Amino acid sequence: MQIAVLLYEGFTTLDAVGPYELLARLPGAETVFVAKHAGPVRNDQGSLALLADRTLAEVPRPDVVLVPGGPAARTAKDDPELRDWLRAADATSTWTTSVCTGSLLLGAAGLLAGRRATTHWLAYEELRALGAEPTGERVVFDGKYVTAAGVSSGIDMALHLLGRIAGDEAAQTVQLLTEYDPQPPYDAGSPEKAPAAIVARWRGVPVEKLG
Amino acid sequence: MQIAVLLYEGFTTLDAVGPYELLARLPGAETVFVAKHAGPVRNDQGSLALLADRTLAEVPRPDVVLVPGGPAARTAKDDPELRDWLRAADATSTWTTSVCTGSLLLGAAGLLAGRRATTHWLAYEELRALGAEPTGERVVFDGKYVTAAGVSSGIDMALHLLGRIAGDEAAQTVQLLTEYDPQPPYDAGSPEKAPAAIVARWRGVPVEKLG
Repeated sequence: MQIAVLLYEGFTTLDAVGPYELLARLPGAETVFVAKHAGPVRNDQGSLALLADRTLAEVPRPDVVLVPGGPAARTAKDDPELRDWLRAADATSTWTTSVCTGSLLLGAAGLLAGRRATTHWLAYEELRALGAEPTGERVVFDGKYVTAAGVSSGIDMALHLLGRIAGDEAAQTVQLLTEYDPQPPYDAGSPEKAPAAIVARWRGVPVEKLG
Repeated sequence: MQIAVLLYEGFTTLDAVGPYELLARLPGAETVFVAKHAGPVRNDQGSLALLADRTLAEVPRPDVVLVPGGPAARTAKDDPELRDWLRAADATSTWTTSVCTGSLLLGAAGLLAGRRATTHWLAYEELRALGAEPTGERVVFDGKYVTAAGVSSGIDMALHLLGRIAGDEAAQTVQLLTEYDPQPPYDAGSPEKAPAAIVARWRGVPVEKLG
């Protein structure tokens, strides 16, 4: 099983690395980071680059496609090279997945038309404009298309996927070894739970500013 | 405020990137990835390299030091160059922190002697051998030393730290923007919660095999 994580300039790091950390522990899986060009790909913050070990052309038929989001998703989604690769990879993939605004790339490639899907809570309308039906769920399965909400939600998506691919015990083993027993000191991780004043302030912020 | 994330060959990616993703959103913070040599540093899985933008010598006095774990922590902890940098950086840091077996590096540098601390659940005795007092908590504060349990716990640690550094509202804002509203499909993230058969199997496994 080959898992391809797509990188593009301006991606959000945890969108990619959260699910990667868990999925890469699947016995027998090969995980590859791919981009238009092999080499360093700088993230949204500018303070970190991940190395893409392979070009898109070198990874034409991954079993699992994982697309992170980021402020740059809004331009990356219109890149014909990325769009063509996503369409071609999706034609033979077992699972096509995204985290955060990564779903905008899937949407722009025409892969989510009429499908239930999700994205960062501030990008629902952009996703809808690409033909998908945004839901408020944290992880959304619609056939082989799996989309996760903002940034950290990719970790939950990975556990769901591990369960589907390798069974509950394999997923639980990965959860135990990564000690994924979340204990956030605040309960502000969704617009329904966060203090209303914080949510209101961010609803007024241009989406280009978001992860 | 300068935040330095230490990289070394064989680190566990999410240990570094989880807290990085949240801490780097602190307004006015500069985050730098450092290693013995600038350039790509390969992770424990072998399938990903992160770029260290600076050498240790270039970042002598960070305000926050963050040390990830990984199977290689057990050899990295005895590297004199890393140990000397950790001691020197700690002499002026505001916070000295680790995730997972990253605490073994802090311990080997003599920074946790007599202190309450934590690490991956399978490495408590190794941490104790370095003079610390391991606890079962997910995030442990002892003065300016903050240690987190296995892999994913660094995200919780970052939220705690953001609260201490910038206040509750700043931390809640980061939690909302990263949608950290965990909903794992299983409840197997600690040895107390995971199925006993899985825990027993891993207790018999050599620690070198762990993340």
